[in-house]
Amino acid sequence: MHAPVENLADIAGDVLARVRERAPRVHCITNNVAQNYTANVLLAAGAVPSMTTAPEEIAGFVASADALLVNLGTFDAERRRAVDLALDAAMAARKPWVLDPVFIDRSPARAAFARTLLARAPAAVRLNRSEFVPLFGGEVSDEAAARAAKNSGTVVAVTGDTDLVTDGLRRAALRNGHPLMSLVTAMGCAGSALLGAALAVESDAWFAAVAALAALGVAGEIAGTSAAGPGSFATAIIDALHGLDRATLRARIKVS
Amino acid sequence: MHAPVENLADIAGDVLARVRERAPRVHCITNNVAQNYTANVLLAAGAVPSMTTAPEEIAGFVASADALLVNLGTFDAERRRAVDLALDAAMAARKPWVLDPVFIDRSPARAAFARTLLARAPAAVRLNRSEFVPLFGGEVSDEAAARAAKNSGTVVAVTGDTDLVTDGLRRAALRNGHPLMSLVTAMGCAGSALLGAALAVESDAWFAAVAALAALGVAGEIAGTSAAGPGSFATAIIDALHGLDRATLRARIKVS
Amino acid sequence: MHAPVENLADIAGDVLARVRERAPRVHCITNNVAQNYTANVLLAAGAVPSMTTAPEEIAGFVASADALLVNLGTFDAERRRAVDLALDAAMAARKPWVLDPVFIDRSPARAAFARTLLARAPAAVRLNRSEFVPLFGGEVSDEAAARAAKNSGTVVAVTGDTDLVTDGLRRAALRNGHPLMSLVTAMGCAGSALLGAALAVESDAWFAAVAALAALGVAGEIAGTSAAGPGSFATAIIDALHGLDRATLRARIKVS
Repeated sequence: MHAPVENLADIAGDVLARVRERAPRVHCITNNVAQNYTANVLLAAGAVPSMTTAPEEIAGFVASADALLVNLGTFDAERRRAVDLALDAAMAARKPWVLDPVFIDRSPARAAFARTLLARAPAAVRLNRSEFVPLFGGEVSDEAAARAAKNSGTVVAVTGDTDLVTDGLRRAALRNGHPLMSLVTAMGCAGSALLGAALAVESDAWFAAVAALAALGVAGEIAGTSAAGPGSFATAIIDALHGLDRATLRARIKVS
Repeated sequence: MHAPVENLADIAGDVLARVRERAPRVHCITNNVAQNYTANVLLAAGAVPSMTTAPEEIAGFVASADALLVNLGTFDAERRRAVDLALDAAMAARKPWVLDPVFIDRSPARAAFARTLLARAPAAVRLNRSEFVPLFGGEVSDEAAARAAKNSGTVVAVTGDTDLVTDGLRRAALRNGHPLMSLVTAMGCAGSALLGAALAVESDAWFAAVAALAALGVAGEIAGTSAAGPGSFATAIIDALHGLDRATLRARIKVS
Repeated sequence: MHAPVENLADIAGDVLARVRERAPRVHCITNNVAQNYTANVLLAAGAVPSMTTAPEEIAGFVASADALLVNLGTFDAERRRAVDLALDAAMAARKPWVLDPVFIDRSPARAAFARTLLARAPAAVRLNRSEFVPLFGGEVSDEAAARAAKNSGTVVAVTGDTDLVTDGLRRAALRNGHPLMSLVTAMGCAGSALLGAALAVESDAWFAAVAALAALGVAGEIAGTSAAGPGSFATAIIDALHGLDRATLRARIKVS
């Protein structure tokens, strides 16, 4: 059932090119630690971020956006209410949305909330291996992720040394990236936001997830060639993402 | 009625020098995305930022500050209450304040709030072209901006490829800056904060606005000569602002 | 009563090495301005940050962390409640915690709150000279700091051109660092977070404070050799901290 690898390289390049061309708006409900970095990553990719969580206006922001990110890294009552209102607006306007269940392995309350959100039809869930367990009830494996995707009707993207992306039928393993990515706070959150930008221009959420994670991973590899540590790496990956073109992404993507 | 251009170059240099010398305190009510970057921009210019929004203490912070920034980018109930208390304190202590009506083109509630704030006598309003419409009720032009300034009794600074600064009688067009400025989140917010620092040392708000926007624009040009993309540009403009001296600002300002 | 200087250099190197080896979790209640930078500084040192303040989950985060930072830079009602809950959890689980009373010299309400927190047995307090006065009731001197430490039963670390660290009996003066450290927002907050990481691996809080401040100061010196201003300095110090090894810290520490 796997899509041919050469096709995925083309598709990833196409998705990136469409983000640059259409400049989709991505509304981000994300944590305070990640807001600034996430906005800069989206801008570098050609997308337009917005970040409000105020109940008076969030529905309007979501309705005029092209995709929504729901990141649970800040989990106060206002933020949870913002999530509810935003999802109502996204569903009413049929906007795709991404769930990023940050740190649910360290908070049962957050994990319970994340599970209720699965029922609201995210186009994709991006998370790491330790967050997979409380959301889907078992360790990550190709089969467990495929089952989770099928049961939830969502694309599941588990990031780590290798990124695994599955919709239950198709599976891609992405081997781009750089070790310093794990030493920059909010890198995963920014990846989820990029996935939102990709969903805004690509209705096949599995393609969108492959494209977004490949773009960030390739940018990370490029940044790794010049960075002197995690500080300069955080800056260099934004430069690399900004400079990334379709041909480079196609040439450097490592997918199987 | 235009001030001679050579005078403006001198004045901008003088204002910058005074900021360095006096280290004014600028209290910033600004959005979560912009707080860190704004603080670093102010520090690079020689000013001293503070950022609290807690009702117990904001009046004290404003009273002991030299200028106030009101940025509407985060628009929750607490922030609106902080704005009210801060403006009461600023008016009581006759501190100049700047309004930055972020994203009011995407939120009617925010636009309505911004219009009420115009009545509270900001020394200056800094905004972009799309935010001008909901605040002043028409498209930007030299005449519309002059009328808006005159009617509101405030300096209006509309930033973009060219920055337009008017108090209703005088008009300056600033042509410094760099395209990467629009790809760094919070760059406009930081410009408004700089305007606050300039107001703290220059009672003619039109001069202050010209000086602040010129300083940021020239720093952007300098940063653009070395940056590899928006990530390194965001860093380089802070370095350039820190290193900017009166002579360089006078020599490089493009004003008409 | 002073520990021999050569011992302190060894101890500082050992503490840094243990942070790298054990990757302690540091839960940070800190202000919005500082959150991102603090997280990146902790990651660069080898520690693992978390930042939630939601009442539903903060006790769980603290209980599963190795140390706690309480920074008063954001001082809203939710944050104060988070502090209460976090301290209950820290005391129940006997986790060490650091107090950073940001800007209490500008807010009587914040100063009063900080004084109540002294009674809850912080392992260390890190603050600057102007914050010392409202917390301990007098100007900083070696004697006043020693008395404050003894009376409060805490290590007092006053940072500035020279960092003073005392537990009432022992005193260290650290002379590393770089002038650009004072032009990067949240640098002091990040130092307090590092102190938390050190406390997680070193039960003698005086040793922990010396090690953390020395590591940051030496990283600052290294960053200062390449930085072009406060923007590139903020990035370079993270790179330098990431690359700092035990031998370099031992060789470069300036302590007396």
